[in-house]
Amino acid sequence: MADVSVLKNRNVAQDGIDPAVKMSCRAAVGENCKADCPPGNPAPGSNHGPEATEAEEDFVDPWTVQTSNAKGIDYDKLIVRFGSSKIDKELINRIERAIGQKPHHFLRRGIFFSHRDMTQVLDAYENKKPFYLYTGRGPSSEAMHLGHLIPFIFTKWLQDVFNVPLVIQMTDDEKYLWKDLTLDQAYGYAVENAKDIIACGFDINKTFIFSDLDYMGASPGFYKNVVKIQKHVTFNQVKGIFGFTDSDSIGKISFPAIQAAPSFSNSFPQIFQDRTDVQCLIPCAIDQGAQTKMSASDPNSSIFLTDTAKQIKTKVNKHAFSGGRATVEEHRELGGDCDVDVSFMYLTFFLEDDDRLEQIRKDYSSGAMLTGELKKALIDVLQPLVAEHQARRKEVTDEVVKEFMRPRKLIFDFQ
Amino acid sequence: MADVSVLKNRNVAQDGIDPAVKMSCRAAVGENCKADCPPGNPAPGSNHGPEATEAEEDFVDPWTVQTSNAKGIDYDKLIVRFGSSKIDKELINRIERAIGQKPHHFLRRGIFFSHRDMTQVLDAYENKKPFYLYTGRGPSSEAMHLGHLIPFIFTKWLQDVFNVPLVIQMTDDEKYLWKDLTLDQAYGYAVENAKDIIACGFDINKTFIFSDLDYMGASPGFYKNVVKIQKHVTFNQVKGIFGFTDSDSIGKISFPAIQAAPSFSNSFPQIFQDRTDVQCLIPCAIDQGAQTKMSASDPNSSIFLTDTAKQIKTKVNKHAFSGGRATVEEHRELGGDCDVDVSFMYLTFFLEDDDRLEQIRKDYSSGAMLTGELKKALIDVLQPLVAEHQARRKEVTDEVVKEFMRPRKLIFDFQ
Repeated sequence: MADVSVLKNRNVAQDGIDPAVKMSCRAAVGENCKADCPPGNPAPGSNHGPEATEAEEDFVDPWTVQTSNAKGIDYDKLIVRFGSSKIDKELINRIERAIGQKPHHFLRRGIFFSHRDMTQVLDAYENKKPFYLYTGRGPSSEAMHLGHLIPFIFTKWLQDVFNVPLVIQMTDDEKYLWKDLTLDQAYGYAVENAKDIIACGFDINKTFIFSDLDYMGASPGFYKNVVKIQKHVTFNQVKGIFGFTDSDSIGKISFPAIQAAPSFSNSFPQIFQDRTDVQCLIPCAIDQGAQTKMSASDPNSSIFLTDTAKQIKTKVNKHAFSGGRATVEEHRELGGDCDVDVSFMYLTFFLEDDDRLEQIRKDYSSGAMLTGELKKALIDVLQPLVAEHQARRKEVTDEVVKEFMRPRKLIFDFQ
Repeated sequence: MADVSVLKNRNVAQDGIDPAVKMSCRAAVGENCKADCPPGNPAPGSNHGPEATEAEEDFVDPWTVQTSNAKGIDYDKLIVRFGSSKIDKELINRIERAIGQKPHHFLRRGIFFSHRDMTQVLDAYENKKPFYLYTGRGPSSEAMHLGHLIPFIFTKWLQDVFNVPLVIQMTDDEKYLWKDLTLDQAYGYAVENAKDIIACGFDINKTFIFSDLDYMGASPGFYKNVVKIQKHVTFNQVKGIFGFTDSDSIGKISFPAIQAAPSFSNSFPQIFQDRTDVQCLIPCAIDQGAQTKMSASDPNSSIFLTDTAKQIKTKVNKHAFSGGRATVEEHRELGGDCDVDVSFMYLTFFLEDDDRLEQIRKDYSSGAMLTGELKKALIDVLQPLVAEHQARRKEVTDEVVKEFMRPRKLIFDFQ
């Protein structure tokens, strides 16, 4: 599951592509690329680029997140390495003042932990200037798991509190390029995944979901921005950033431009006409969990959105890595370790009640709460959450998806 | 000017991209790429690929045609090197039988000299199976010269005698990628050049002209084929064939797929619906003239389509390389050399009368005709030809261009 994420603001150059901006799609839409690790990509430690040279460090690129640390990636180091900024208390307070309500627990708990130029978006918002949200997903299969929802849950919250338009890119072309899929399969997954995304509760009047394979041939603005970006990025640059080699297809090599293009508002003339000055905020995830526990590749180690209550119970009880002790006696005496406990991590994502979460943390750490009890607390949270998602998804008919994916005007108040 | 050309047949794979076919866009649309030589491309002799290793040979790639031979490229060698076939007497006779009329003098005179799988297209035609024509142009400036028209004149003839649909790709995206142009400039050149192309007399009911920048965002089929091709071509392959380097933009590197895609009929669903089995014949030019005489880069050495009668006269008299002797006496005694004479070469392209051309050849070679007389003969052919073109171009209104460039059904009889 995606357990940390980055807030990213894209400043739109008035004319052409700002060189400082043009390659930043990597972190911006990292979650897309990484929901599955495409075969044939070089493993960490191969000659990858700047990150790879720091041999003992965590490794993060759009397709691979790896660390030898049981507690997961060291995000403070990552922030320095990527040149982004930490989402600190001051920024969270400013967000609270701007929106007039308590910030989402993903922000309060440091789950969305880093940003670039988020303050510019807040400047715009406070001055009644427009901005929009852009996020996406690489539809690699029909099955989505809970972790895939994190950026969408947060994006929905952003859409609600800021009341702004949102575009969601389904990179079916990317999945076609990287995986052994036909175009029709990739597109089919895009539509199926869109249903799960819609089930998160996005506002149909403010949300445009698009398949690249579809929208590229339906928009007068999208391809023009793709070509603009492609003109200003060399193979040397994508080689350094994404780790491409000479044996990679020209489709993969040029693909980063397609993920960068939606961050320019004139990629959506039906929404923004030919305005090029609308800023874009990109919520995205950067990895899938502490070490590889609960990863997507092993069906038993992820909670899928299609899981039954029983499956959820079994998975949490059998497969969630525990920070508990070897025996009850030892546990009572020494307490559990919340920092490596996957069930507790899930609770930080999905248990909204701050007081209850803090109580669990204290009780588990002290040994007053046993692993079975912690797991039961998580199961009690996840079972209704998934069941409610399934109920909402059932209501998402083909007609509803079609409407979300139709290029059209969105309703919002912009000057 | 383009003085030789290649006939090329593209066999459409039923599903996916046939590996044997996927890279052949290079020769297929070579004329497009080469109407101007983009800056920054490696010169002949640099580490270019298979062709470059043969140091003493002619050099031909999509952007460069170079030879040290005053008579120009050795096309027989080129045919062997490119693995195409010669258009021989037998094939020309078969074409004559198929169409029931005399083949174009470009064929009779060996100006279109090579083909690949042209016999398959004739098989299709004889069996009343459909095929279509695909050619194109890279709109690098508003100014087109006579040489640029050669493939279009021939294509128009093919359209007339075979009565088939034609698609003409204006690669404004390519010119944007290679040259110092804005998107609007490149698109503007595409529209201006389309007017000159339309003035060649193409049938509006059977011809679709498209700008890549426009059509990519207006076709449900085009981008899908581009991605299909991009998946199956590696950087190693385009490096070997086109001479790209790591410093080239990812736009250039992936561009060959965009020129290959129109050779698949489902890139044009408005014309062929989702049929993938319609064969495609691609007439194209491969170079710009003997050595560099009369090239596009020097305005005085090309006949532009906007030239006045007086300019034509001056250019031919002053700038066309002559095969004549140093003095009249010497010329009368030894005769001129038609093989290197640029005026005579122009006559082989533009003087349709076989008997008159043969008479000129004999007279000039024997010395009976002087250089001034030969040049006058050419001027007498070119002045009305260009004036008539200008008159037809005047009739091409913005509305006419718009209609040619509107994605729409074409009228033709296909089973």
